[in-house]
Amino acid sequence: MAGEDRVLANGAKHIDFQTDPSRYRHWKIAVDGDVATLTMDVDENGGLFEGYQLKLNSYDLGVDIELADAVQRLRFEHPEVKVVVVRSGKNRVFCAGANIRMLAGSTHAHKVNFCKFTNETRNGLEDSSENSGQKFISVVNGTAAGGGYELALATDHIMMADDGSAAVALPEVPLLAVLPGTGGLTRVVDKRKVRRDHADYFCTIEEGIKGKRAVQWRLVDEIAPNSKLEAKIAERAKEFAAGSKRNGNGKGIALTPLHRKIDDNGLHYDFVDVEINRAQRIATISIKAPEAAPPADVDGMIGQGADFWSLQVARELDDAILHLRINELEIAMLVFKSHGDGAMVAAYDDFLDKNKDHWLVNEIRHYWKRVLKRIDVTSRTLVTLVEPGSCFVGTLAELVFAADRSYMLVGQKQGDNRPPPAIMLNAMNFGPYPMSHGLTRLQSRFQADPSQVDDAKAKIGESLDAETAEELGLVTFALDDIDWDDEVRVFFEERTSFSPDSLTGMEANLRFVGPETMESKIFSRLTAWQNWIFQRPNAVGENGALRRYGTGERAQFDMTRV
Amino acid sequence: MAGEDRVLANGAKHIDFQTDPSRYRHWKIAVDGDVATLTMDVDENGGLFEGYQLKLNSYDLGVDIELADAVQRLRFEHPEVKVVVVRSGKNRVFCAGANIRMLAGSTHAHKVNFCKFTNETRNGLEDSSENSGQKFISVVNGTAAGGGYELALATDHIMMADDGSAAVALPEVPLLAVLPGTGGLTRVVDKRKVRRDHADYFCTIEEGIKGKRAVQWRLVDEIAPNSKLEAKIAERAKEFAAGSKRNGNGKGIALTPLHRKIDDNGLHYDFVDVEINRAQRIATISIKAPEAAPPADVDGMIGQGADFWSLQVARELDDAILHLRINELEIAMLVFKSHGDGAMVAAYDDFLDKNKDHWLVNEIRHYWKRVLKRIDVTSRTLVTLVEPGSCFVGTLAELVFAADRSYMLVGQKQGDNRPPPAIMLNAMNFGPYPMSHGLTRLQSRFQADPSQVDDAKAKIGESLDAETAEELGLVTFALDDIDWDDEVRVFFEERTSFSPDSLTGMEANLRFVGPETMESKIFSRLTAWQNWIFQRPNAVGENGALRRYGTGERAQFDMTRV
Repeated sequence: MAGEDRVLANGAKHIDFQTDPSRYRHWKIAVDGDVATLTMDVDENGGLFEGYQLKLNSYDLGVDIELADAVQRLRFEHPEVKVVVVRSGKNRVFCAGANIRMLAGSTHAHKVNFCKFTNETRNGLEDSSENSGQKFISVVNGTAAGGGYELALATDHIMMADDGSAAVALPEVPLLAVLPGTGGLTRVVDKRKVRRDHADYFCTIEEGIKGKRAVQWRLVDEIAPNSKLEAKIAERAKEFAAGSKRNGNGKGIALTPLHRKIDDNGLHYDFVDVEINRAQRIATISIKAPEAAPPADVDGMIGQGADFWSLQVARELDDAILHLRINELEIAMLVFKSHGDGAMVAAYDDFLDKNKDHWLVNEIRHYWKRVLKRIDVTSRTLVTLVEPGSCFVGTLAELVFAADRSYMLVGQKQGDNRPPPAIMLNAMNFGPYPMSHGLTRLQSRFQADPSQVDDAKAKIGESLDAETAEELGLVTFALDDIDWDDEVRVFFEERTSFSPDSLTGMEANLRFVGPETMESKIFSRLTAWQNWIFQRPNAVGENGALRRYGTGERAQFDMTRV
Repeated sequence: MAGEDRVLANGAKHIDFQTDPSRYRHWKIAVDGDVATLTMDVDENGGLFEGYQLKLNSYDLGVDIELADAVQRLRFEHPEVKVVVVRSGKNRVFCAGANIRMLAGSTHAHKVNFCKFTNETRNGLEDSSENSGQKFISVVNGTAAGGGYELALATDHIMMADDGSAAVALPEVPLLAVLPGTGGLTRVVDKRKVRRDHADYFCTIEEGIKGKRAVQWRLVDEIAPNSKLEAKIAERAKEFAAGSKRNGNGKGIALTPLHRKIDDNGLHYDFVDVEINRAQRIATISIKAPEAAPPADVDGMIGQGADFWSLQVARELDDAILHLRINELEIAMLVFKSHGDGAMVAAYDDFLDKNKDHWLVNEIRHYWKRVLKRIDVTSRTLVTLVEPGSCFVGTLAELVFAADRSYMLVGQKQGDNRPPPAIMLNAMNFGPYPMSHGLTRLQSRFQADPSQVDDAKAKIGESLDAETAEELGLVTFALDDIDWDDEVRVFFEERTSFSPDSLTGMEANLRFVGPETMESKIFSRLTAWQNWIFQRPNAVGENGALRRYGTGERAQFDMTRV
């Protein structure tokens, strides 16, 4: 399980990423017209694991799962909301950041997964702002330290009380010997464009920066005395709502609970099925095409709500990936398969393409983008098998291009009457689902000759058999029935025998060809260094700063500079 | 010293980056008209440390120091050379990569420093090709594995024998549980634009790829049967020479031995002095302005050769940085100071600006660029103190902008008659010395408001005192005499008390604001992941792959995926 020194609270057997506001322990959502307020009021005794208390609005993964859920619900359930105010329910503290005792007692794998998810949540805030027109304002009413300030950094506008006490701080380096690794270092210089030497100073002082200097150095956007703060917040919210591109019309849909069954062999949803083979250390993720045609129009889609196939399958897939990442640490490989009628998948993609200006369709498209991005940064070997009966069309074909390798069968399998498999491209492969570094998966794939993207585009709507797909560069290997079983088996056996660490590093490098963006820098430059530090005795050793924090004893450092 | 399990060979007390062809044990330079041949013929018994043999043209840092020296000399000593052919002196083996026993027995710090230097050497090859018109051809006559293929990847054109045996390979992941971390993963997909799934396959097979598939997959540029290989090489060399922008005129200058004295207290050169304070863990690097005006013309400069101030001080500074990096691992901070007549520095910069089309001036400018880049990726806190008597003008002012923080004195010091210090900008601050991510240090500094670069440019040639420099954003803090000593002392004490690892990670993030390039990706995405892996028991533990290599015992892996 996730933490070797830790036991999940309340007898839970796994970490669950599904929640809803009725179950929140740490956050409150209040919607008032076009402004929502997300209040962080962490329940000290509501930690995900036993053994620590979440004091001073510090957080663990459980707190962040609620935040991610809230941000998601605001997008889908509240089309009327144009501004989200993030604030604290505690007096004189905004958020103290990730809980240090939780970190100190976590396995390396849990630390890394925790940071990955919290990074995705913060990227999700920014995605909502950019693509759904929900602008985020954070209200720093007291200490915003470490992950607390990093949360504020993910919002569009940081307001701080000018009371001689409220301050923003990134005290990780001086206090804990780790980095502000949830985007902090990157967002300070790349998003807020704080001058690098000011950033250097800021990141090495425990007490942080308050008042005017915080504004001058671009660390916050504005300060206000407490007597005027509420009025200012209301004013800003109004202003941001007026400037939002979200039209605010329509009625939200409820993100109803997923139909999910978890057993020893895997996870079972309506359209996604995960079969876990622990002996082989492989999880096979099968995605089923819709069984019915899409609704005639957007009203029909709204009527279906969370049962609309494109949305439902995205939610199921997202949950499955998150579950596997954190609860199944020894699974080396995710094997994607699909089955069902490709024409149905095409019809749903066509619906998403034709109605892309509708707010809900827009949300579903951006959600698929985020699910696929989550897959891109998942540290497991990704393989897609294109076999008879599969339906890798458009959106689902992105799983072929997201894979480290794909195998496609040439012709039929002996004793199987189903026709040879085909891949079909559509508009969804040429824009709506960019990776975190800004390129589509096909652009990323065809860096050597960008005209291959055009060649692929020219085949939109055509059934592409294995030989054609291989020729177009869409699959890694096209194999016939004679070779298929052996080749795939040998690959699986070899791959799962390699050091998981070297695969993590290799895949993280090969998947992101070409440019970097702020978002991809967070997962590469920042995260890779943080993971390194999370291995170093100076941070995590018996005498390291994370372990010594709060004991009254100073950490002892090996002063060798590496 | 560099390796805790290792003793330097031949009783050496430190690793020396100075060498010359008369002392090479592993490389031969032969110049024939406009083509130079660099032959790698590693002396098995010429390892830098005791305890391993450099079989099959495998290399350690000592081998790479010679390569770096050779590449440097070809640029300065051989203006006539337009093509460099890199080949092996061994039969049926090009290069087996970094020596595994050396790696297995090295400290973490040595591994990291080794990779950093070898990366810089390969970047240097590419810099020579791009900016000096010396095109590199590698001739893969047999196995080019791991670092061997990475060396070939740094060349412009890879030719391989088509003999059923010669192959390129990156077997690090399957064989050693580490990454092809000397640029390999990045160059395969970003430079050679090998499709990511092909790269995935290639990087997981021990035996590598030979013949036609190597060409089809873009891993090499051409193959030729052994009977035709020499003729093809000559043909390509001729073609590349004809296409080179290097005009080939002029006579080279000799890179004569540096005047250097190393003692317990530091390193002492003619214009660079390094004072090491081991108790404080600080090295102070003082740079002296030239004492005489620059020569009247380029012939005068050629006459001075390696004694021309701009070149000499670059060589001294480069050597000092390299020495400190690898021989002084507990030094936390490099403090840059300068002294002498700023007008002299300005005059030399002016010379470099006016004569920039001359081949030697071009070389000196690009060399300074590389020295400054080396400083940027040096994992020590960089501080520049601008005090009375200093001469931070143009090229030397880049040390103010390269620093994590700079302090500048307002006015004079009590009891010191020298005038208040000034910074002066010139053309060298606005283009010739980009960082590895493509921006100048001033562009990087002023991301928030690029017009500040123009504001600075408008001040070219003016003496900027501390208050003006602070207002322009050129220094971090302007302090008067009353505060100076205490502020600087407290900063030094605090900074050197922090965990070196967290500082390494923090500085590597804050220094590289904004875009990334292939070169900067090698130092961020790739290197940071490799450093992480270099900490992981699966690679470096007692039962890890590096330690088990060659023992006949298989490595044992913790299969947790992180």
